[in-house]
Amino acid sequence: MTETLDAPVVTSEQDPSATATAWLDSFEAALAARDVPAAAALFATESYWRDLVSFTWNITTVEGREGITDLLQSTLAGTDPSGFTLEEPADEADGVITAWILFETGAGRGRGLLRLVEEDGERKAFTFLTTLYELKGFEEPKNEHRPRGAEHGADKQRQTWLERRQAEAESLGSTTQPYVLVIGGGQGGIALGARLRQLGVPSLVIDKHPRPGDQWRNRYKSLCLHDPVWYDHLPYLKFPDNWPVFAPKDKIGDWLESYTKIMEVPYWSSTTATSATWSEETGEWTVEVEREGKPLTLRPTQLVFATGMSGKPNVPDVPGTDVFEGDLHHSSAHPGPDPYRGKKVVVIGSNNSAFDICGALWENDVDVTMVQRSSTHIVKSDSLMEIGLGDLYSERAVAAGVTTEKADLIFASLPYRILHTFQIPAYEAMAEKDKDFYERLEAAGFEHDWGDDGSGLFMKYLRRGSGYYIDVGAADLVANGDVKLVRGQIDHLTANEVVLADGTELPADVVVFATGYGSMNGWVADLIDQETADRLGKVWGLGSDTTKDPGPWEGEQRNMWKPTQIENLWMHGGNLHQSRHYSLYLALQLKARFEGIDTPVHALQEVHHTG
Amino acid sequence: MTETLDAPVVTSEQDPSATATAWLDSFEAALAARDVPAAAALFATESYWRDLVSFTWNITTVEGREGITDLLQSTLAGTDPSGFTLEEPADEADGVITAWILFETGAGRGRGLLRLVEEDGERKAFTFLTTLYELKGFEEPKNEHRPRGAEHGADKQRQTWLERRQAEAESLGSTTQPYVLVIGGGQGGIALGARLRQLGVPSLVIDKHPRPGDQWRNRYKSLCLHDPVWYDHLPYLKFPDNWPVFAPKDKIGDWLESYTKIMEVPYWSSTTATSATWSEETGEWTVEVEREGKPLTLRPTQLVFATGMSGKPNVPDVPGTDVFEGDLHHSSAHPGPDPYRGKKVVVIGSNNSAFDICGALWENDVDVTMVQRSSTHIVKSDSLMEIGLGDLYSERAVAAGVTTEKADLIFASLPYRILHTFQIPAYEAMAEKDKDFYERLEAAGFEHDWGDDGSGLFMKYLRRGSGYYIDVGAADLVANGDVKLVRGQIDHLTANEVVLADGTELPADVVVFATGYGSMNGWVADLIDQETADRLGKVWGLGSDTTKDPGPWEGEQRNMWKPTQIENLWMHGGNLHQSRHYSLYLALQLKARFEGIDTPVHALQEVHHTG
Repeated sequence: MTETLDAPVVTSEQDPSATATAWLDSFEAALAARDVPAAAALFATESYWRDLVSFTWNITTVEGREGITDLLQSTLAGTDPSGFTLEEPADEADGVITAWILFETGAGRGRGLLRLVEEDGERKAFTFLTTLYELKGFEEPKNEHRPRGAEHGADKQRQTWLERRQAEAESLGSTTQPYVLVIGGGQGGIALGARLRQLGVPSLVIDKHPRPGDQWRNRYKSLCLHDPVWYDHLPYLKFPDNWPVFAPKDKIGDWLESYTKIMEVPYWSSTTATSATWSEETGEWTVEVEREGKPLTLRPTQLVFATGMSGKPNVPDVPGTDVFEGDLHHSSAHPGPDPYRGKKVVVIGSNNSAFDICGALWENDVDVTMVQRSSTHIVKSDSLMEIGLGDLYSERAVAAGVTTEKADLIFASLPYRILHTFQIPAYEAMAEKDKDFYERLEAAGFEHDWGDDGSGLFMKYLRRGSGYYIDVGAADLVANGDVKLVRGQIDHLTANEVVLADGTELPADVVVFATGYGSMNGWVADLIDQETADRLGKVWGLGSDTTKDPGPWEGEQRNMWKPTQIENLWMHGGNLHQSRHYSLYLALQLKARFEGIDTPVHALQEVHHTG
Repeated sequence: MTETLDAPVVTSEQDPSATATAWLDSFEAALAARDVPAAAALFATESYWRDLVSFTWNITTVEGREGITDLLQSTLAGTDPSGFTLEEPADEADGVITAWILFETGAGRGRGLLRLVEEDGERKAFTFLTTLYELKGFEEPKNEHRPRGAEHGADKQRQTWLERRQAEAESLGSTTQPYVLVIGGGQGGIALGARLRQLGVPSLVIDKHPRPGDQWRNRYKSLCLHDPVWYDHLPYLKFPDNWPVFAPKDKIGDWLESYTKIMEVPYWSSTTATSATWSEETGEWTVEVEREGKPLTLRPTQLVFATGMSGKPNVPDVPGTDVFEGDLHHSSAHPGPDPYRGKKVVVIGSNNSAFDICGALWENDVDVTMVQRSSTHIVKSDSLMEIGLGDLYSERAVAAGVTTEKADLIFASLPYRILHTFQIPAYEAMAEKDKDFYERLEAAGFEHDWGDDGSGLFMKYLRRGSGYYIDVGAADLVANGDVKLVRGQIDHLTANEVVLADGTELPADVVVFATGYGSMNGWVADLIDQETADRLGKVWGLGSDTTKDPGPWEGEQRNMWKPTQIENLWMHGGNLHQSRHYSLYLALQLKARFEGIDTPVHALQEVHHTG
């Protein structure tokens, strides 16, 4: 991702801060006068306004003056925006003025990022990001508003912190009900739980594992994060300065466990939700759960699925799994290489998990074969760091003043509609830098792609959440033949072989299905019902009309972190970056509803596809 | 504490940065030429050079040109200092130029703080702080040097993070020995353990409690930190922005437990050291420990006592404790007020613990009497925050760019010899601000003092570590008679009374000895022997010739964080501030010895007093 937009270079005599301030003044005057045409006229012909909850109580991007007119006509009076001002001096580079801004609405306070280009001799907005960061009257108790801890004075009713915590834990789920129930306590559920706790929204996060962090601990033993530390911080408490660039899975698991405790996230381990039903009458969900084997009914008002955007293992229906005599499992259940030393393992799949598992097996003297069923996009981790992420998430970015929070907003300010155009050159640069590597890989018979339009890894992630490998070393094992590579589709299994459609027989003591994960929608069908899942529609993806992400264009990721067609049902998830950043907007939406603040949703997403 | 020194106001035409740079250039030239008189001549007649490990491999302050000459004559050649430069632009206020500086030595890199005053028309150093922050070739793996975590590439010998951690835990104490054994795993031991881990020094922290943090959890239930959050951060991982100003004891306990895990501190809980013997022959300690009841011998090279600067409960030898039929315990074993509702409790003592315990008892409808045996210094917590700490440790300080790390160095730069002169005005201001409060307290018969020389709380802490209460509300209970106050000495106990020397009889179901703690020296006598404890001498205090801190003047706190008369024996402790700040210098001294770096100690402390 890059942060400089390729707009026509124009020269300006004026100080960029003065120019940006003039634009903000005109914009505010138009808004104050409720003069929508005047406000829309301040945007360029090609322009994008992305709003995270501040105007629309939604996550939405509108395009061009028409979209901006629509947005303002429906939201302006209710939002009552004011106080647009620069947060720091504006920058100008390549003809684009970039300005960090602050503003207020009737309900809250916002922060944004504005990019101005020259059009017809005037400065017009090209991209405009507006985000809500706090609700008035419900500011977070932190920094100068942090709690005192000790309550000075003498008080016969005093309850200590520990007593309050114990009383809360005892009453939760019996005499008191969570307003928000978050199903799934990985990084997403935990980050959201921390924000809700901080906002004073009675909440509960439940998870099936015995301990927070087990979601990571239980995976194959060589797993490390593929994203670097600067991209991975959780809200409120940053990793320490000595945290590894790519954290080992057990270390991240331990961190999540400590974080849950430190942030006082109400969290029930060893708890499974078995069913959920919405009652229009009571305005509550009835959620049946089993906590450490004991059944219990919860009655939250809001239900959040944080079960993982790639949560439900996808195991293809292959004939012969019943006759296969060896060990067969999905990658999510792979125990690591230790039990398989000296054996023959066939790994079905050629994306992240497949490569990581093949690499670890080879390191442990396993005879390993990878079956590639469709093309995969690979980038070398170092190149991705240097070219793809380095401007925003790196030690270099931090040194340049780009904190993780700023990086999140810069990235959020790039409209999804044109994001691929900024991504393509970065991946072209990686292709050039690692030319030899890709030649070797293809010479070994590996089918490699760069995404449908050459926009690479991050677009694949946003569009379909699959189809790539961030190479931390295992690709070379395929390129040099240490890990055997076979291309084709699985036809069936025998007692001791994987047989491909072309008749190839692969002897196997062990078969690993590194075949990815289903849609989050499947969790909804399981817990509520298929009808609700269908009304909710497909989750994730942008409507880019590329492989596994059918059109029409949605503008934002489907159903994520925003109101859905199902009342009081929310979807949360994604990588650590998204868990951190979008949990803020989801938490503010939930807090507003908890406090009875009016939250008219602009442009509620329509459903074009089921699960 | 205040950060502005009251030096004569002089005006200067020159930019303070240029002046400070000119001084540094002259100083460096003199040092490079090994011209000690020229270097000493750059200091004012009244001047102080405090060195933390960078020149002296000691923690020491020298005074005046004579002291500076001494220091340089013995350390200059071995230190080989160079590269003195400003870290940021210098400031000038009230005629004093203050400059943050960087420099190098042969062994490491340092940071310091220089204050220049005008004397005889020239700028001379008034205070000069030099500190070592890293050893060359042994830079800490953090920020741009942080570990990668994932080791990219394929490697048949690969060991995962978890496997390495498990192997290390299994071998430690059996096939491998810690180079450093830290006895005591409270905030001091944990902070030092984190730094040693970070520096790659094989270490082990042992503690008698079942879990890290129990040192806090086990105390009376209403206890909160009396120091504010900005003063309390541990190294590497700061408290989050929502951390309470005065953290409740169970919350700090949980933090210490999480911190120990996150920082990978090698820590044995439920472990008690039973004896320690130094062998001149092997250059090792033989330390007998019991780990979860099982005896084990450890053979560390360095032994650190981090058992608490106020660790060993001090129970006065009162006749009648054998006939007293009620519940009698030291404040360190006080369970909190719950068991005592409706009973009569006599609390012996009038310092921090006594007040906290009396307050909590009164809140729980206990009939409570405080016995004041000697005068106590009280400051209201809010006033201490505002007047005493606010310039260095507060939200306001952070907003003004005074990070906790900077505040630590500013505070460290104020010479102990004259620190009281900066403290006295602050306490005079508090006396004025809270005049009514002190009048009410004294009218109730409470004997109050401001320290021997009116320098207040922090000097009492540094000199004797006792004799004060930071009022968080309980003082009012004494002032208004809710907690009954009696002054006098205990003569004896009967079956159900405390009898004072003047014959006063105080009926008691419960007696709490809030009678403080002994010297750390006592731990050494217990674990090693009395002869070693005597050779070590008194621990803590400055030699200020005030109550409980006999002269002669020592210049630094006795035996803390620096080489002692006992080879390879170190004392560590203090509040969270000291645990954070001084653990760095202790860790660097231990690391240098571990790596075989020459560490000639300048001005090893002499012993003037036993225990």
